[in-house]
Amino acid sequence: MDGAWYAGWRHVFKLDPDREITDEALDAICMSGTDAIMVGGSSGITFDNTVELMSRIRRYAVDCVLEVTSLEAAVPGFDYYFVPLVLNTDDAQWLIGRQAEAMKEFGSLIPWDVTAGEGYIILNKDATAAHVSGARTELEQAEVIALVQLADRLMRMPTIYLEYSGTFGDMSLVRMASETVSQARVIYGGGIDNAERAAEAARAAHTVVVGNILYSDLQAALSTVQAVHNTPFE
Amino acid sequence: MDGAWYAGWRHVFKLDPDREITDEALDAICMSGTDAIMVGGSSGITFDNTVELMSRIRRYAVDCVLEVTSLEAAVPGFDYYFVPLVLNTDDAQWLIGRQAEAMKEFGSLIPWDVTAGEGYIILNKDATAAHVSGARTELEQAEVIALVQLADRLMRMPTIYLEYSGTFGDMSLVRMASETVSQARVIYGGGIDNAERAAEAARAAHTVVVGNILYSDLQAALSTVQAVHNTPFE
Repeated sequence: MDGAWYAGWRHVFKLDPDREITDEALDAICMSGTDAIMVGGSSGITFDNTVELMSRIRRYAVDCVLEVTSLEAAVPGFDYYFVPLVLNTDDAQWLIGRQAEAMKEFGSLIPWDVTAGEGYIILNKDATAAHVSGARTELEQAEVIALVQLADRLMRMPTIYLEYSGTFGDMSLVRMASETVSQARVIYGGGIDNAERAAEAARAAHTVVVGNILYSDLQAALSTVQAVHNTPFE
Repeated sequence: MDGAWYAGWRHVFKLDPDREITDEALDAICMSGTDAIMVGGSSGITFDNTVELMSRIRRYAVDCVLEVTSLEAAVPGFDYYFVPLVLNTDDAQWLIGRQAEAMKEFGSLIPWDVTAGEGYIILNKDATAAHVSGARTELEQAEVIALVQLADRLMRMPTIYLEYSGTFGDMSLVRMASETVSQARVIYGGGIDNAERAAEAARAAHTVVVGNILYSDLQAALSTVQAVHNTPFE
């Protein structure tokens, strides 16, 4: 993982193409010192709104990664691409089926050197992504850790994303996941709405994603950048 | 893949714990010059018959790997372990569910340095493994290659097993898979019942597995070792 393009990312802002953001807010976000902007969302993502958001972010030097959740919105021109595979679903379509369809569709067009898999574990039952993918969110700690081991050791997934979108997660579990992995990078997202929570997540995960609060309290969101960068991963 | 324990394997004999093999035949198999003996099967595998077969093979110096398909038959004492994840199934239980259960059960007991994932693609609809796992065997070439890319590039699976058990497969597809991968090792199994077919498979795949013919024509089976070792991978 050391040489990979995502290996140095500690703080990431996640922007949703389906939500409005002013030019002023976007300027503050892109100039905040965050390590990367991730573009993605669970619903309403189209080619057009993804292109539009990308071209606005592209005016800045910050790294920009697309989380490819639908074939239609796989827009070229990003620096990097994450492809999520939902690990805690009984429906293999969300684990592998749709992604395989995308491979088949785009084949040799895929820029593999800037594309990486994300092993997604969705842990908030109320998250849109959980509903859409039929994720089994009611997992015991041991079940989550087993999935993390499987993704890290058997599959050798480069990243594992613990997604609590909409709620602040179980930091002891996140820390356990980060301690368990042999090579994967553990990404945490969900419920980070102030500097304290950002620091807490930064102690538990390799990479911290801050999303929703950008749309409701920009100043609080911006404060998470320094909080994460000033916190060592334990 | 270069330093991995399975990286040098060109020819592998696969023995089924649920089938009878005489001491004399087992001696010939273990002394044949094959690179490894794989123990595995699709039905009737128990702890007892796996232990019994293992202890008989263990009298020889040949590398011995267990393909772990059921939790009950995960016997300690093998040199190496492969854990299959069926990639072409709609039932996530066979892709990840049962394996995660095993991780949860055995946790820290798993010898990770001698354990690797196998991305299984089952391509003969009549194979027992296809029935058991609900594999979608009627795939176009492009769909198979898409799964191979996904396993190799997104998941970074160390091995991809093209399983035609009971029939000789499409060697042009196997070759395409081997040419497609960036780091995974492509394993081929199915229908190799003489030296010519063994050589053909050895040109198309990194590793060739010979199984059933051991039980019906031992001499033909033994002839595949040299055939594979004398054939360069193209």
